[in-house]
Amino acid sequence: MSSPAMAIAEELDAAECLQLISPGGVGRIGFTGEHGLTVLPVNYRVTGGVILFRAGLDSAVSGDLRTGIAGAEYRVAFEVDALDEATRTGWSVLVRGPAHHVGSAAGQAAARAAGVEPWPGGEKDQFIRITPVQVTGRRIRRPA
Amino acid sequence: MSSPAMAIAEELDAAECLQLISPGGVGRIGFTGEHGLTVLPVNYRVTGGVILFRAGLDSAVSGDLRTGIAGAEYRVAFEVDALDEATRTGWSVLVRGPAHHVGSAAGQAAARAAGVEPWPGGEKDQFIRITPVQVTGRRIRRPA
Repeated sequence: MSSPAMAIAEELDAAECLQLISPGGVGRIGFTGEHGLTVLPVNYRVTGGVILFRAGLDSAVSGDLRTGIAGAEYRVAFEVDALDEATRTGWSVLVRGPAHHVGSAAGQAAARAAGVEPWPGGEKDQFIRITPVQVTGRRIRRPA
Repeated sequence: MSSPAMAIAEELDAAECLQLISPGGVGRIGFTGEHGLTVLPVNYRVTGGVILFRAGLDSAVSGDLRTGIAGAEYRVAFEVDALDEATRTGWSVLVRGPAHHVGSAAGQAAARAAGVEPWPGGEKDQFIRITPVQVTGRRIRRPA
């Protein structure tokens, strides 16, 4: 019933964090929407130093997000982790920064070329980018 | 390069959502902390209809959270998902509700009995419970 002994938690610097999230995959976007604080998974890519995604798994709140960020400075949180429940080790990264629509055709083409795809596939062609401003992370490991 | 065709996204009702998250595991708590909007993974259990966890992977923000919820009504978001990147199917659940410290010795003993353990193991003995008020979710699947 006790947790595995001697886990070591270490802070990661921003460069390590950005390296860890660079392969893309599933992250969770956090934002304040019409229905309050919202966290939902999105399929993301990192390209040119920004985080790009196309749609959330929850269409109601992704609609929210698309509306919410019409203004210029809409701060969001973006979390990525890789955690092994069996060994209770892994890492997590938290990125904070403004989210913006990718408005230009050139920007949208670049996003598409980066392979940003929403999971439900289909009509969602609104790309959103997050510019990392504050990047923190942590790794939990066992001593060697 | 195109996404798998014909993914079906369906909304889940609250009962289905609560069933899906009932085994516990890793969820992500979202809250507004001292350093802004924060999303971090926690090891959680569900017991007696509430979500219980003990500590975040990021000690700085979990400290934040512990401080922030000293007041009575501190709304948070809690997200759990199970997503298969290979098939691009899976589900996600979003719970919103107030977070409270588990203050009584009896409540803390019950939380301990439920098996709530923080990953880094050790000194974190502050249990936090989230009471689900708004529960939404979505499943992405392929047609049979």
